[in-house]
Amino acid sequence: MFTGEEKVSGELIYKGRILNLRVDRVRLPDGGMALREVVEHAPAVGIIAETGDGGLFLVRQYRYPAGEFLLEIPAGIVEPGEEPAETADRELREETGFKPGALAEVVQFFTSPGFSDERIILFHARELSPAPKECDSDEFMDLVRLDRRQLQDAALSGEIRDSKTLTAIYWFLSR
Amino acid sequence: MFTGEEKVSGELIYKGRILNLRVDRVRLPDGGMALREVVEHAPAVGIIAETGDGGLFLVRQYRYPAGEFLLEIPAGIVEPGEEPAETADRELREETGFKPGALAEVVQFFTSPGFSDERIILFHARELSPAPKECDSDEFMDLVRLDRRQLQDAALSGEIRDSKTLTAIYWFLSR
Repeated sequence: MFTGEEKVSGELIYKGRILNLRVDRVRLPDGGMALREVVEHAPAVGIIAETGDGGLFLVRQYRYPAGEFLLEIPAGIVEPGEEPAETADRELREETGFKPGALAEVVQFFTSPGFSDERIILFHARELSPAPKECDSDEFMDLVRLDRRQLQDAALSGEIRDSKTLTAIYWFLSR
Repeated sequence: MFTGEEKVSGELIYKGRILNLRVDRVRLPDGGMALREVVEHAPAVGIIAETGDGGLFLVRQYRYPAGEFLLEIPAGIVEPGEEPAETADRELREETGFKPGALAEVVQFFTSPGFSDERIILFHARELSPAPKECDSDEFMDLVRLDRRQLQDAALSGEIRDSKTLTAIYWFLSR
């Protein structure tokens, strides 16, 4: 039976806008020591937003760290004091102009557990109805609607190159 | 039509063992300026390792940034000079003690495109045969074999909490 790694000391390298960087010294299960570089990031939500005809809303936006435009499910960071379901409701309105009549948590996962604590809570939003769109001034995105067949093609062809979106699409198609 | 974001200047904040942190100043599509925090990380591979009876090999290990044990597909960082397929072959041997008779790329994706350039190349490994196991001294992990039904249960129940592994399992089950 393996045990975990125990923090011995830590140093905050950078405190930023959407992330902090920490380097911790840890004790390994065999008593040895190692350094762990950890990117602290707030939890985020992703929304599997089902359209009336059984497809999904996706958004296309430029992702600077990736250096390319990506087609993704609507998503966003959980703000301080917000419940994840509130974030999902808010981000869906901001990014699609629709609000959900039904919203259910699907699954939670770490995006890069080797170097970050970022966790995504995935929601399934149904019974969408138009809602006043409040777009973040910082966000430039295209709204796209794909039906089941297009989702399958986009996932298999490599057009979808975002982890949470692949998980969301395969979950949706498997139902 | 939206255009991307253009780098104006950048600062290297931290140069580390598995990641670097950079903060860039970028010009937005509307001419405005913004800061982008970018975690540079080498590409990694994940391996959908199919066992003879139609299940998958997974590994359970402590993930310090996540603060918990996670059940994941075998995976690892592409070392300098290595082709991703070579990494997949090496990591599979190191983590499972098996080598693939057939290895095919499935899909590539970004794990956290909002703040990192980390990209995972997912491989499907089949026709596994025993190979001398060379375990990294830094790695402590348990090898687990799950059949299709167990994979489905583990994904739906929330036992799988790793992004690449959920993508891998849903892809595998959808075939």
